[in-house]
Amino acid sequence: MLDWTADYLQEGERYPVLSRVEPGWIRSSLPAAAPERGESMGAILRDFERVLVPGLTHWNQPGFLAYFASSGSGPGVLAEFLTAALNQQAMLWRTSPAATELEEVVLSWLRQLLGLPDAFEGVIYDGGSASNFHALAAAIAHAVPDAGTRGLIGRSDVPPLRVYASEQAHSSIDKAVMLLGMGRQSLVKVPVDDQFRMRPAALASAIAADRRAGCRPVAVVATVGTTSTSSIDPVNAIAPICEGEGVWLHVDAAYGGAAAIVPDYASIFDGVGRADSVSVNPHKWLFTPLDLSAFYCRRFGAFRHAFALTPAYLQTDQPPDVRNLMDTGISLGRRFRALKLWMVMRYFGAAGLRARISNHLELAKRFAAWVDHDPDFERLAPVPLSVVCFRAVPRARELDAGALDQLNSRLLARVNASGEVLLSHTRLNGHYTLRMAIGHIRTEEAHVRRAWQIIRAALSGLCQ
Amino acid sequence: MLDWTADYLQEGERYPVLSRVEPGWIRSSLPAAAPERGESMGAILRDFERVLVPGLTHWNQPGFLAYFASSGSGPGVLAEFLTAALNQQAMLWRTSPAATELEEVVLSWLRQLLGLPDAFEGVIYDGGSASNFHALAAAIAHAVPDAGTRGLIGRSDVPPLRVYASEQAHSSIDKAVMLLGMGRQSLVKVPVDDQFRMRPAALASAIAADRRAGCRPVAVVATVGTTSTSSIDPVNAIAPICEGEGVWLHVDAAYGGAAAIVPDYASIFDGVGRADSVSVNPHKWLFTPLDLSAFYCRRFGAFRHAFALTPAYLQTDQPPDVRNLMDTGISLGRRFRALKLWMVMRYFGAAGLRARISNHLELAKRFAAWVDHDPDFERLAPVPLSVVCFRAVPRARELDAGALDQLNSRLLARVNASGEVLLSHTRLNGHYTLRMAIGHIRTEEAHVRRAWQIIRAALSGLCQ
Repeated sequence: MLDWTADYLQEGERYPVLSRVEPGWIRSSLPAAAPERGESMGAILRDFERVLVPGLTHWNQPGFLAYFASSGSGPGVLAEFLTAALNQQAMLWRTSPAATELEEVVLSWLRQLLGLPDAFEGVIYDGGSASNFHALAAAIAHAVPDAGTRGLIGRSDVPPLRVYASEQAHSSIDKAVMLLGMGRQSLVKVPVDDQFRMRPAALASAIAADRRAGCRPVAVVATVGTTSTSSIDPVNAIAPICEGEGVWLHVDAAYGGAAAIVPDYASIFDGVGRADSVSVNPHKWLFTPLDLSAFYCRRFGAFRHAFALTPAYLQTDQPPDVRNLMDTGISLGRRFRALKLWMVMRYFGAAGLRARISNHLELAKRFAAWVDHDPDFERLAPVPLSVVCFRAVPRARELDAGALDQLNSRLLARVNASGEVLLSHTRLNGHYTLRMAIGHIRTEEAHVRRAWQIIRAALSGLCQ
Repeated sequence: MLDWTADYLQEGERYPVLSRVEPGWIRSSLPAAAPERGESMGAILRDFERVLVPGLTHWNQPGFLAYFASSGSGPGVLAEFLTAALNQQAMLWRTSPAATELEEVVLSWLRQLLGLPDAFEGVIYDGGSASNFHALAAAIAHAVPDAGTRGLIGRSDVPPLRVYASEQAHSSIDKAVMLLGMGRQSLVKVPVDDQFRMRPAALASAIAADRRAGCRPVAVVATVGTTSTSSIDPVNAIAPICEGEGVWLHVDAAYGGAAAIVPDYASIFDGVGRADSVSVNPHKWLFTPLDLSAFYCRRFGAFRHAFALTPAYLQTDQPPDVRNLMDTGISLGRRFRALKLWMVMRYFGAAGLRARISNHLELAKRFAAWVDHDPDFERLAPVPLSVVCFRAVPRARELDAGALDQLNSRLLARVNASGEVLLSHTRLNGHYTLRMAIGHIRTEEAHVRRAWQIIRAALSGLCQ
């Protein structure tokens, strides 16, 4: 199993990046019921290779250039092995002092690399959706302090609440307001400029209009590195609006935050120190295996107020300043997630992390330049980070909007069918758009160059 | 690292079960900032042993008899290693057909072992708190179908909502109603009988009273294996009340569910097939490392309605009946958690799992008998599963209630200071109560017997 894994991490490029199985194939290839008697690990691993490996889409291979890339680097993988063996459950400090305090230590290390002020305390969640959910839950508790006890229903003192995020914000914001009792209609999608960044003036007037209509603005979510284009909302201009309005500012930097550790890119975090909360996902672009989202909050007291709750069976005689992770969110139990981030940060060092992120940023610029110089392609968004949005616009053919969309959709399918690389898509200004996202630890110029060859060859094939 | 881990799993009993570090020791033993240059794995592992190991409370050792025990068995640990190396992110079927379909397969295997009907579809969450949260979110969406769009605030057609759970229900129910916009006052704590089980008649009258007061009951949470005593709510009597009232019934069997796979204990799930949703945590008592909670729902369409939301960048041309895990909860990204449950179920087989759970159930009965036969101790709750609640009541001393509480609190501290075993506590009928919870895969009669010796010796020490 170790050999298989080592080989996979080194030589896994022989597998098609996108799984080629048909829906239902895996299910139908496995028994319909659990075995009555135990089986050998050998038999289990044979089925793993025979049935499950063909059903993998290889996120942990350098040809994975879709969505946001993600890499389980060696030290992170080994840490997860230890995490499982130790099986720490860090609900209370005493149930795992190591997991509780290491979380504080590594989040402080990361906070410093990100250039965030000391005032931000951190906690680890499973992903960016959870971080965004908890940020908005805290914002509600901040705006309506007794929401946790009295709820939001049927109260004459609680007007309709409003949350603001750009049209390009992540869908987890929509999901959070669905679940927090506010409903999707409470989420105001603020228009973006021609670079897909939230327009601060539009935010200010949306807030003003809502106040006039009797609504109460509770939170603004700014994004540093949006999902479609990696655009960066102008937090420096958004923060003073939030401060003036007394509205919670959450910065979703799940993907983009990692770039802030690179000195040339530190400015992407301008103004972020004025936010109330910030999230950055080391499992996206800091070589840490799933799952690990770092959530920082500058009002940790208020934050804990939204979530703390101690039943008799969990009361302890710990000093009151000792943190219990169960007080920081939905989950009572917590895995020892900090261990992998600690091992990754130590193994690569800050310099090693910066160098790898820089390289990805550089590769994206290079790919963007190739697109720009090819008259059969056009770029559809700026490249502030490591995502390139583009499409084919073949010179030789006059195509209307619908035909262009169809062509690009077929182009993407053909590229992904190569098995060598995987790209994803989005829609920008109504256009079907191809997305290349660079972020895997072993993605090198050769992979990006090969992707470009495949893309051009596929277009030629389609235009013949 | 592998050697260390193998040794830890075999010989880790040399460590004190409860960590002996002081708060802040780990933090102060580690550098305040990330290293600039990368370090060797050797150096990292030396610090792991020097600083982190003393800060572990050893959940994965057989002397861990506190809270609910939990074991990362060998096959589960190896699976987590593979999971990290593959780093699958199963938001869409196509981003990991293997993780998506294996989840369906193993949850079906487990469902059959639990004796639940086919109609229950499953999904994996990180823990019981998340399962309970999603159950209640689905219940709200079922009762107020447009809650996700319009929210719950300021609506004349949404009266105060009510959720019912016994006084012994898990704190995650309180936390869920805090966050879902209903507030803690919406949670009605139904009285229990002298065996800590919800009283169905009290439930029925609470619902009737709330209806008369203009409230809308939306969910009842019954617990199979409560946290304090492992009591089992009479689901068979609760289900018809919920059916009659059109109220969502969720069964929280996070801990207790595992016992339902043992034929002699199958009756603990009587009536559970009539519930709308059920949760069982294999990371508690099915030898699966954290984190894995199995959530089953009999109204999966309604369930998905509460959570589904597809942004443009995640639209696919998959057939509509192909499940995307992102449509089943807060999280967009999902780890490949099914792999560990699959490996555990195959390695031990249904028979092997049943034998181990049976043994734990038997050990708990034996321990309870020892308590019952010792005139210096008394049992404070029945032992329907593998938790024994008891306290010392030394014959030789006349102690009032406060003094007895204090004595038992000191007794627990002394027992846990032994380092050989770890027990936890709760409060029952106002009394400070010691809890022994048996569930670790390597806990044998010798550990339970040794715990009993330590407890009695500690009491003698205190009474001298």
